[in-house]
This record gives sequence, structure tokens and C-alpha cells, in this order.
Amino acid sequence: MALGEFELIERYFRPPVRRAALGGGDDCALLQPAPGQQLAVSTDLLVEGRHFLSTVAPERLGHKALAVNLSDLAACGAEPLAFTLALSLPRAEASFLAPFARGMLELAEQHGIELVGGDTTAGPLTIGITAMGQVPPGQALLRSGARAGDELWVSGCLGDARLALEVFRGRVELPGETFGAVREAMELPQPRVALGLALRGIATAAIDLSDGLLGDLGHVRRRSGVGATLWLDALPRSAALAAQPVSVQRECLLAGGDDYELLFTAPASAAEAVRAAGVASGTPVTCIGRIEPAAEGLKVYAEAHGREPLDLAAFASFDHFKTAG
Amino acid sequence: MALGEFELIERYFRPPVRRAALGGGDDCALLQPAPGQQLAVSTDLLVEGRHFLSTVAPERLGHKALAVNLSDLAACGAEPLAFTLALSLPRAEASFLAPFARGMLELAEQHGIELVGGDTTAGPLTIGITAMGQVPPGQALLRSGARAGDELWVSGCLGDARLALEVFRGRVELPGETFGAVREAMELPQPRVALGLALRGIATAAIDLSDGLLGDLGHVRRRSGVGATLWLDALPRSAALAAQPVSVQRECLLAGGDDYELLFTAPASAAEAVRAAGVASGTPVTCIGRIEPAAEGLKVYAEAHGREPLDLAAFASFDHFKTAG
Repeated sequence: MALGEFELIERYFRPPVRRAALGGGDDCALLQPAPGQQLAVSTDLLVEGRHFLSTVAPERLGHKALAVNLSDLAACGAEPLAFTLALSLPRAEASFLAPFARGMLELAEQHGIELVGGDTTAGPLTIGITAMGQVPPGQALLRSGARAGDELWVSGCLGDARLALEVFRGRVELPGETFGAVREAMELPQPRVALGLALRGIATAAIDLSDGLLGDLGHVRRRSGVGATLWLDALPRSAALAAQPVSVQRECLLAGGDDYELLFTAPASAAEAVRAAGVASGTPVTCIGRIEPAAEGLKVYAEAHGREPLDLAAFASFDHFKTAG
Repeated sequence: MALGEFELIERYFRPPVRRAALGGGDDCALLQPAPGQQLAVSTDLLVEGRHFLSTVAPERLGHKALAVNLSDLAACGAEPLAFTLALSLPRAEASFLAPFARGMLELAEQHGIELVGGDTTAGPLTIGITAMGQVPPGQALLRSGARAGDELWVSGCLGDARLALEVFRGRVELPGETFGAVREAMELPQPRVALGLALRGIATAAIDLSDGLLGDLGHVRRRSGVGATLWLDALPRSAALAAQPVSVQRECLLAGGDDYELLFTAPASAAEAVRAAGVASGTPVTCIGRIEPAAEGLKVYAEAHGREPLDLAAFASFDHFKTAG
């Protein structure tokens, strides 16, 4: 079935308008942030074969494409408002579009946000989403606020998405049920929006983990001008990952990518408030290290009180242009 | 030269931050619309071979990718504020990126707006832009406001972009200098932002011409619930197009696409105000027809006072999924 562009938008991507003053179907959408709010804007582009495998179900792809943008809003402590979709796909087929739209709009519904505009075209499968949220001026969680002495925290578990990728690559074998669980971590990440909101006024800096822990911690270190200490044994991991050889665990935990958990910092005096924010938002949070003066650089210890830091040369951050395939 | 994603963004797409409270480099950009303003949001996706030819110079491609979004803001009467860029490209090469960024950021500079976020990845050449602007509540120009009796207006000239495409397709031949001019219409469209702002409070409806006059007029008719009369001889055209056979002229004028002029309606009593808005914004404006009751449908006459409407079956609107190649 071939659909025209306008029919396609009408049929699959026209949910009812609520918060937006004007939804899709005009040249622009019109948004009205609440008085005294700043607008937070995030953009991500997903390309088949690079950001997702052709094996992913369309419903999960729709979910993930929006989830990675909501994760950016979460990392800023912003409340999601609306999003736009730019979709290039080889053929306009209902067998793809119906579940793709369902996965995307169900996640939107869970967060009470609207699809307010978009553009569809024939072409290679790529999905571009721009998500908008609001945050009171001065309350956004930035990458630049970490200070020496802060504790370093992470939400959820790390490394399962990378573990699933290694199964697809044939480097790791997992029993079917375990594979289903780690595959879900890769294909159905849950953006930590509630935690981001709960951390306003508590966290000093935050980022979402998309490029891998070492790479994203590097962004915080550069922006904040700080060093950091990581405790490898403190990094939260699933039973499936914990059952893997140490070398696999380290690679998945430190350079995994695609975790979409929040990495954040807070003064040691705020530890109880951080735990309370985790409980209030239903999100596990774990202290995994400490922010140090810039001169200390980055040190990763096998244990929280280890003496000798590990050699980091073996761990490379994920970079879309530097890694092949 | 292969660049990493972060170096690439730093090198080519990191202009100084001005209006945005926080520019690129964090999880989100933060925007602050002025008090009492709505945010207007537009998204477009450009794919090589479909929205632009491989023959286009990178600098012009950068210009056009942003221009088509500013054109959407113009059609809403919105004042541009900022934009995000999602860029997929086969290789990170300075020979492409430097002029591409220059063309894009020069147009941004002309309109006093900032690139506030983005995502780059390796993949087929596609460019997704989301532009944001502001407009006071109730003053946006919508597609839905046209009323029977309104006059129908258009800015600039129509059909040159399509004429250039026909030259590339080998169906039309033009002398070199003339081709250069129509090629510029295709590759360097000038978004009618100043006209859109000047038409606030005057125009009853507006849309930008991206799909071709008949197709885009159809959007206004559906949204407004009206019919329309078009006068073919009134349609503004370049000397290059006027020198073509009538059949070529009609196709380029009515179904051309890629014009990025504004099509708008205004009460007949506002004709002087419309002309004044054209003068104030330095934009030619031409009355090309009239809005009719819905029951009249669409009628195209060869002349303003012709008796027999033309047969429209020969003119198809441009639709990215219905037209091949």
C-alpha cells in the first residue's frame, strides 16, 4: 500500500491536540510555555544500521526514537511539552507505520506530550525528533555544575544495551529469556524524566548516558572543569551482565553506550535527598564515585577503596564517526 | 579528513550564543520566548536526490535547508528565534562541512537567529532542521482563516525553481545566464520572513508554497472550508519562464513546488494595507485570484475575466510519495 505524504500524516501521526495552542497541519505548531518557564530543546537523529538494527520491531523503534530525546530533557530536569518528527522511509507501508506510530505515541501519552509537527519523505530509513520541554529559569540541570567533593551517581543499571548488541554481533551467547531482558534494555529504554524533575535543586550537574559512561563523564568533566574517581565494583549491573567475564562487564559498563540512564553529581551532604528523589520517582540510584579537582584527571578503581587505578587505554568511548560499522 | 562527532560540532556548528539562555553543548538548549509570546515550531527533512540534487553546492544546500524552515515561520507570521540541526552524512569532510555550515549560518545571521542544538551521524546525506519562532497569541497567520470574498495574493515570482529542475532533467534548454538565475531560485530561496511579520493583522490566512500553488492552495481551501478562483495570466513569473511555451509555464506556475513564496488571503478592503506591507518588507506582492464559497470548488481561468475555467486534470500537485524518483 502506497500512501501520499498528507494521508500518511493524517492517518498515523495526528493525535488530538491538548497542550499546544495549535497542533500539526499548519506551517508551524504553536507552543505556549507556562509563564516564567524556559523552553528546553533536544534533537536526535537515528539512522538504520547505526543507531538501530534492522531486527528491531517497528513499535520499539518508535518508542526508542522518542525516548532518547525525552532522556535529554530528563538530563536537563525539564518537563516534556511536545515534539516534532522528521521521518524518511523507503516505502509508506502500514505494516511499518502503524506499529511505529503506536510505539511512539504511547510513550508520548505516558509523558502527557503531543506530536505537534513533522515532515515525512521517501528515502533511507532515518528518524529525526526534536523534543521541547520547560524548566524554570536557573533550575535546569547542566553539565557544567559539578564541583570537587561532589558525589557521582547513576540511575538504573548500566551495560545491558551493549550486552544485547554483543549477542547480535555473535560475541556473547545468552539463554533466550535473559537475552529478551537485555534486548529490552537496548530497544525499550525508559527515559528518566521523573528522576530529572525530582533532582532539580539537588543535583549540581547531570547528563544522560548515550555515548557510554566514560565518554559522557568526560563531557561533564570538560564542562565543569573537574576530575573524577569511579569505583568499578559499585557500578549497578543486571544479573545477566554480572554473569559475564570481567572483561565483558568492564567494556559494557564503561564504554557501553545506549544506556539512557542519568549520570549526575550532588554534594555529599545531599545524599539523603538524592535517595529520596530516587524513591519518589521510582528510580534506583547508586553512588558510583566522586568528583575530584581537575588535576586528578579520571581514575577508575576496581573497588571503592582500591589503591591502584586501572589502565584506561583499553576503554574507548563510543563515537559515531570513529567506530566503524 | 575524518572528524569525530564532537570535534565536528565544535568546529563547524558552534556560533556564539546570544538570545538563547543556553546554546549547544548540553543535553538541551534553553530558550526564553519574550513574555506574552507563543512559540512557533517548524520541522523539515531534506534527502539527497529527492529534495536536492547532488549538483547543488554545499553552501547553497546549507542555506536552503534552513530557508525552507524559516519560510514556514514566515507563513505563520512568526519572528525566528533559533533552530536545531540533525545531520546525517556519509563522511565528515571539511570540503563539504565548511561551506555547508557557512551557507546555513550566514542565513541565520541575516535573520538574527542561533543554532542551539543538533545531532550529527554517519549515514546517507539527510538534513533535518527544526526552527522556532515567536508570535503574540492570536496573531499567527493560519491556513484556516480564508473567507469567501477575500482576495488571494502571492509574493515574488512562481515557477522558476521548477523550470531549473526541468533544465536538469533535460526537458528544457536555457542560455547559461538565464539558467544561473532560475537555478538560484531553486537553490537559494529567500524566506519571506519580513513580509510574514508585516502581514500580521492584515492577512486572514497564509501558507508558504513548497508543494506547488495548486497543492498548497488546496491546503488552505480544506482548512478554511472555501473554494477559490485563480487567474493564470495574473500569476507573477520571471522573463525566463514567460519565454517558455504555455504548457511549460502552466506546469511550472501551478504545480511547480519549491517556490517558498507566501500565498495569503486578505479582505478586498485591505488591498492597500497588503501593498504597503509588500513595500515595507521589500517584497513584491500580486493579487492572483479570489476566495469563493466552498461549493464553487477550485476554478482556474486563463485570464482574470475569462468565461470558461481550464480543465485541471492535467495539473497534479507535488507529493513526495506519489511522484517517482
